[in-house]
Amino acid sequence: MSAYRFAVNVTPKPGILDPQGRAVERSLPHLGIEGVSAVRVGRRVELTVDADDEAAARAVVETLASELLSNPLIEAYRVERAADAAAVGS
Amino acid sequence: MSAYRFAVNVTPKPGILDPQGRAVERSLPHLGIEGVSAVRVGRRVELTVDADDEAAARAVVETLASELLSNPLIEAYRVERAADAAAVGS
Repeated sequence: MSAYRFAVNVTPKPGILDPQGRAVERSLPHLGIEGVSAVRVGRRVELTVDADDEAAARAVVETLASELLSNPLIEAYRVERAADAAAVGS
Repeated sequence: MSAYRFAVNVTPKPGILDPQGRAVERSLPHLGIEGVSAVRVGRRVELTVDADDEAAARAVVETLASELLSNPLIEAYRVERAADAAAVGS
């Protein structure tokens, strides 16, 4: 068994209203920031999976991402290896 | 001017209590999922910046990340180019 660190990026699907993204966009003039658009705010979940190999670990993450971490009606997710995998491995 | 798509990953700093991560961990047995630990829940903000070059765009994102998108007392952030940069470029 090895420990694999993954990240799941959950973002609002295109066309879905994103109130948090709008709030960020409306704050920009107050900070004097120009040229920023298309702000989308989602979640990032990082987790460690103990499994025999990376494929098995990724399968667990995919299950978790689709069944618990995202709402498939309005959100898309993408699974990636997290940068600090080695540091967390046992 | 070109359009650059970036993502800002904001995560709770190590040692900071993460109630959302704990909630995910407590949900795992109900889903029959084992071997998952160290769950940390943060935010992912994707945005497009119009700038003369990538360095200038990244500087805008760094300002935004540190002043608006994260709380430096309890959160760390990392800026990365988003995968769909080309699709958003003008």
